Amino acid sequence: MASSWVPDIDPASDFSLANLPFGIISTPADAAPHAAVAIGPWALDLKVLAANADLSQLFPGIDGLFEAFSQPTLNTFASMGRAVHRQVRTALQDLLSESTTHPATLRDNAALRAQALLPQPAVKMHLPMSIGDYTDFYAGYHHAHAVGAMFRGPDHALQPNYLHLPVGYHGRASSIVVSDTPIRRPVGQILLEDPKAAEPKKPVTAPSRKLDIELELGCFIARGNEMGRGVAVDEAEECIFGYVLLNDWSARDVQTWEYVPLGPFNGKNFASTISPWVVLADALEPFRATGIENKTELQGYLREEKEESVFDVRLEVDLTTAEGDTTTICRTSSKHLIWSFPQMIAHHTLGGCPMRAGDLLGSGTISGPGGVDERGSLLEMTENGKKEVLLAGMDARTFLKDGDTITLRGFCGEEGARVGFGACRGRIYSAVQR
Amino acid sequence: MASSWVPDIDPASDFSLANLPFGIISTPADAAPHAAVAIGPWALDLKVLAANADLSQLFPGIDGLFEAFSQPTLNTFASMGRAVHRQVRTALQDLLSESTTHPATLRDNAALRAQALLPQPAVKMHLPMSIGDYTDFYAGYHHAHAVGAMFRGPDHALQPNYLHLPVGYHGRASSIVVSDTPIRRPVGQILLEDPKAAEPKKPVTAPSRKLDIELELGCFIARGNEMGRGVAVDEAEECIFGYVLLNDWSARDVQTWEYVPLGPFNGKNFASTISPWVVLADALEPFRATGIENKTELQGYLREEKEESVFDVRLEVDLTTAEGDTTTICRTSSKHLIWSFPQMIAHHTLGGCPMRAGDLLGSGTISGPGGVDERGSLLEMTENGKKEVLLAGMDARTFLKDGDTITLRGFCGEEGARVGFGACRGRIYSAVQR
Repeated sequence: MASSWVPDIDPASDFSLANLPFGIISTPADAAPHAAVAIGPWALDLKVLAANADLSQLFPGIDGLFEAFSQPTLNTFASMGRAVHRQVRTALQDLLSESTTHPATLRDNAALRAQALLPQPAVKMHLPMSIGDYTDFYAGYHHAHAVGAMFRGPDHALQPNYLHLPVGYHGRASSIVVSDTPIRRPVGQILLEDPKAAEPKKPVTAPSRKLDIELELGCFIARGNEMGRGVAVDEAEECIFGYVLLNDWSARDVQTWEYVPLGPFNGKNFASTISPWVVLADALEPFRATGIENKTELQGYLREEKEESVFDVRLEVDLTTAEGDTTTICRTSSKHLIWSFPQMIAHHTLGGCPMRAGDLLGSGTISGPGGVDERGSLLEMTENGKKEVLLAGMDARTFLKDGDTITLRGFCGEEGARVGFGACRGRIYSAVQR
Repeated sequence: MASSWVPDIDPASDFSLANLPFGIISTPADAAPHAAVAIGPWALDLKVLAANADLSQLFPGIDGLFEAFSQPTLNTFASMGRAVHRQVRTALQDLLSESTTHPATLRDNAALRAQALLPQPAVKMHLPMSIGDYTDFYAGYHHAHAVGAMFRGPDHALQPNYLHLPVGYHGRASSIVVSDTPIRRPVGQILLEDPKAAEPKKPVTAPSRKLDIELELGCFIARGNEMGRGVAVDEAEECIFGYVLLNDWSARDVQTWEYVPLGPFNGKNFASTISPWVVLADALEPFRATGIENKTELQGYLREEKEESVFDVRLEVDLTTAEGDTTTICRTSSKHLIWSFPQMIAHHTLGGCPMRAGDLLGSGTISGPGGVDERGSLLEMTENGKKEVLLAGMDARTFLKDGDTITLRGFCGEEGARVGFGACRGRIYSAVQR
């Protein structure tokens, strides 16, 4: 990978020239949200670039890019398809590289640089996509196994369907927020007694006492399928726009009481946080890995030609207390999935369900095979509140306290050429009393 | 209710002057979908009306109506709030009544009448709302009880949470279609053996053999709530735009295998059909009824001041075979709910989940307390395929056959002043082989 003429790129930056993730910004000069890419500590304003550069020179043969980059979401750009994403990202890599073939456009154009290359702290990040539907899967095998063992014992940890199909459920799209949006502790119906106690159950309405995180990888759909037609597993990569980190905040006590028989509801729908920059599918290509082996004889529609069908993104979770002490409570990798996103897409569309540009798929909580410091949820780390996680500052947690900040991070690659996601962060604020 | 000058209104029409439901049409003269109201066998084109009438006379004090009526969905109009819906509907009732105070606008204006009043068969109906999120509840007590008894026995028919909170789950918004959209039988993973049989389970991938209907009432949200703030149950009516009939097609065999532990997924997400005309909340006001009594001591946020918190809509389900024989297989009422829509909204937003204009809430399957001819699903009518429903034409069904057409109908009120929904119809086409 060539190096960039853009100044001040830290070798440890998630946003090297090898990455160029897309996001939606508003700026001091333009309050209407529009497209940008991240490069080092800068946001390159694509609306400004498109308004001032010769697009037919930079992106020959692609129509409608100025309009796409002026939209308040990336949906239009996403729906232009993988070939366009590839061409645009490659052209931007050229534009930003030391040896650019278009030096006059930006590198040597101080006026445009001042307008188009903005320090990230000076721009406001918005939700990158308009999310039509959000589906959360359960493909983190070690998480599913650990949680199942906790509630049903190790012999019945996995349900009979788990190894045959990517189990998932429909989530709530309206409460997906971008990193740094405050998270309000939810109020909910909670059973304070043992849920297995005899009748009659007496719930209370109270702020959740078991507010948790879920460390996930999110996948945005670029182009969908016609209703009634499924997507073949080996063609599903063409449907993928890119990836974000996803923290699917969960109120475990609300969830325990409500989820039978139709699944999680208020325990999940109060908020999910995503990282603001969408790492394009092409940028993750060099970091393919083999997922967890599934020895089950799979149905034909789930059999993949590609063996390396997941990605080895190094994932970390930081908990920062109100006092400002930060502890990394989890280190794992996104390779610990037993189902790939192409398998999830093939399964999701098997019956004809249509996907649309901007739909979000969550991987499910990702945990490593090792100790508690590889677990992607406090539920697992603390065995549902039985054990404490020790923190810096002589503090400890079972579940989250008001004032806690959770930061997910993820990256691949070596220093100087990192492909990372930036922070996926949320701070907990106290519940609204009802 | 005054009578209308509009010709050819059958006294049995769902679309009397007392109704005036809103929908989205395209016409021979204007292919761009836009707003209309139904009156008898006609669609009154609101975009044409708004372009040719003096809006400040007809709807004094309301801005932006031409823009709202020119949109491809009713979301903008819905988000203007209940007071605007009321004023607009009342003004349209005046405009269409024999004794209209604006006779020159439409009644005595043959040229505008010819342009604006179109026979319904000449217009194409579209999905009336852009649906951000779809949530399906389970408030049909008799359905929940019958299905629970079938799978867990009568003593454990209802889960412990059922009488404490409106159980619901997030559905799939992308596969909601308007009446008369063809329904493709879904392919799915199915366990042909008894799901309680010993390991190892061996699923197959095949067209669903247990394709079913669910008779529901759907509720569209007009204005939502800010994230983090709940809606009080006695203020929830203000969030409601109107109602449609909803057939939440279900593949029972797919659902049985997939739904543990996260709820229904591919068994439901292949299609849901709604009726095209949204009956405004005000139009249903005269038909309030008391729902099913819940003797449980409710949490405060679910206690309603209003006793008559549901509606007595007479509901019917017709099954028409490929040969053209029609049998009414169900007659019931939408009053058979144990939770009202305001209670569903209060619960859904309890933890702060934001609702948005255009969100759809389903009541859950509605069944009456009586015999099999009051049941809102074939699952109940046939005891999961054990008994046949006899049809006209010497035919019978356990579940749906390819070529079957299901039509939901619903109406309130007396002849000449009926408030009805029109047809919610879908025909089953054979599965795409994979």
